[in-house]
Amino acid sequence: MSVPALEVALGDRSYTIRIGAGALDRLGPELRRLFDDGARRVVVVTDSGVAPHYLPRAEASICEAGFRVDTVEIPAGESRKNLDTLGDVYDRLLALPVDRRSVLVALGGGVVGDLTGFAAATVLRGIAFVQVPTTLLAQVDASVGGKTGINHPRGKNLIGAFHQPRLVLVDPATLGTLAPREYAAGLAEVVKYGASLDAALFREVESGAAALLAREPAILSRMIRRSCEIKAEVVRDDEREGGWRAVLNFGHTVGHAVEALTGYDRYLHGEAVSIGIVAAARVSVRLGLASPDEAKRIGALLGCFGLPTAIPSDLDPADLVTAIESDKKSAGGEIRFVVMKGLGSAGFERLPAERIVALAQGGDVRRSGAAASRPRR
Amino acid sequence: MSVPALEVALGDRSYTIRIGAGALDRLGPELRRLFDDGARRVVVVTDSGVAPHYLPRAEASICEAGFRVDTVEIPAGESRKNLDTLGDVYDRLLALPVDRRSVLVALGGGVVGDLTGFAAATVLRGIAFVQVPTTLLAQVDASVGGKTGINHPRGKNLIGAFHQPRLVLVDPATLGTLAPREYAAGLAEVVKYGASLDAALFREVESGAAALLAREPAILSRMIRRSCEIKAEVVRDDEREGGWRAVLNFGHTVGHAVEALTGYDRYLHGEAVSIGIVAAARVSVRLGLASPDEAKRIGALLGCFGLPTAIPSDLDPADLVTAIESDKKSAGGEIRFVVMKGLGSAGFERLPAERIVALAQGGDVRRSGAAASRPRR
Repeated sequence: MSVPALEVALGDRSYTIRIGAGALDRLGPELRRLFDDGARRVVVVTDSGVAPHYLPRAEASICEAGFRVDTVEIPAGESRKNLDTLGDVYDRLLALPVDRRSVLVALGGGVVGDLTGFAAATVLRGIAFVQVPTTLLAQVDASVGGKTGINHPRGKNLIGAFHQPRLVLVDPATLGTLAPREYAAGLAEVVKYGASLDAALFREVESGAAALLAREPAILSRMIRRSCEIKAEVVRDDEREGGWRAVLNFGHTVGHAVEALTGYDRYLHGEAVSIGIVAAARVSVRLGLASPDEAKRIGALLGCFGLPTAIPSDLDPADLVTAIESDKKSAGGEIRFVVMKGLGSAGFERLPAERIVALAQGGDVRRSGAAASRPRR
Repeated sequence: MSVPALEVALGDRSYTIRIGAGALDRLGPELRRLFDDGARRVVVVTDSGVAPHYLPRAEASICEAGFRVDTVEIPAGESRKNLDTLGDVYDRLLALPVDRRSVLVALGGGVVGDLTGFAAATVLRGIAFVQVPTTLLAQVDASVGGKTGINHPRGKNLIGAFHQPRLVLVDPATLGTLAPREYAAGLAEVVKYGASLDAALFREVESGAAALLAREPAILSRMIRRSCEIKAEVVRDDEREGGWRAVLNFGHTVGHAVEALTGYDRYLHGEAVSIGIVAAARVSVRLGLASPDEAKRIGALLGCFGLPTAIPSDLDPADLVTAIESDKKSAGGEIRFVVMKGLGSAGFERLPAERIVALAQGGDVRRSGAAASRPRR
């Protein structure tokens, strides 16, 4: 089986992404290729939703490659990506115990990847870890970039570290068991890459929408690979998010605000991003940076995947403003907002949160409660 | 007031150590020199023991320099350097809230420095922090090197990260309020630097022992500066402890084992290190690497500072062997033990833990319980 490689160039933190149907069964040999100095302890961290489907194959592959393999299973769900679960993971890793040569394998979606990566970044002041993302969102987004972390009651990902994996192994076949909503939420990020950074990718997603909805492995592998390439290029140029990397937040400013205001339980992250992408496209049109037709195509494509595209009508615009301002990306009074300068070409505009909400919703907005009664589309 | 600077060269993570009596009152201006772009939030993290002595001066200096200043006070003591306290610190920092431009100031000993540094490394995926160490141990050891972290029930510093401070400000005048035992424990690390890496420093400590015991600022400033220089040189060459940096563990292999076996409450860290230094010197003599006279001088100097020098007689040598092996520095069957190749010249020897204990105690040791009854000095 061929598993084509994509290199993420980050100096001495460089690593490889391997993408291909059936790649999961290559996990052991790929680990052995990286860690060829005898018996190490490999600990697979996974969650209760993923374990029944893929843990036995992962364990078997690792074991056959001659590693000692252990498993730490965490409860599934974004609400468990917190300090309590992290403390449990520390307890279990240190009880085994892991040593500095041990390797953690994150087998699961973004929650497993983020939490496992943060545990790897901090246990014994940092050990190696490998990502095996099993959701589309994690495959195209969370597994590239080295962001790890957990949530805090005051916001998502407020505690974390940058810690690059040593390898990312993507098996699109694992998407076969993904719930339709989760799958569509991942497609939102693919649309994001296309709309903001690669018009050709956007057109391929448009023309291949039916095949994507049918989860055809060939087009999936191509789309995942191209998305990872785009993100890897951005991250290579700005590993710690000083400047250009923030371009990856296209759609995320309004998306995060919608997630926060709906208590993180009405929308999946990708669904909120879908709403945010449409909002960002509309802001771009209103600023004269993109055409109405481009914004319309983006909305139509997201809608075709069954994703929400409108800011929910029960959200108070003034609350949206506050939520955008309190997002950790806003350091001063103005937001460095990611706009689209035509399809596939992102840029930044410094805008007050009030103006973002006004432009996204098509009216002015004030902080008074009266704003809530303003008609919205 | 002049506060001479010592540069720690670590590429884009380089920083300055400023040492001088009265330096505490220069904290605000020094912060302003580093962060000259307007009003930032500065959060002083300190503990209940240090706050009454030095917090008001630190706050006043920061405030006068035009920063917004807040304080997070944690309970004093090594037993509180844990995940619970860290969680409280996260809660309080995020309630303020801190943003990515905020700066944490660690005002206190090693516990405050390690925990604050780890909070700075992980809140919002990393913000700036500054060390203002107020114990001799923290001034000569914990404030240089970028090691941050917390303890876990299974061992000290098992959770942590490398995160370099942006500045270390050392005011030897803060040692005036330090308890005699704490002060002597710090001197053990100064003796360590001299014995293992700088014979001239060792001789100066020997000849200035009385002045050091009297806490005379002039000699203290010199000794602290030289100790920081030595550590900074070692860290510069090996920031992440791949090889040479482990030389700083001279005396720590047996020291850590003694600490662990006595429940971390009989000896201060520096006291256990004092015992470990004498043990390492004795091992070095037995291996023909150092002279008996050199080992004797080291033991005499530590004893003169009121520090313990003998492995406590109630410890079972077999337990010492097990504790050394389970120390996280031992990855395989043999320990990479730091020896002294003559005064001021450290090196490594790969030794089984049993041999280390046997050489340190002057006999053979087996894992059987009978070993405990072997006569010891």
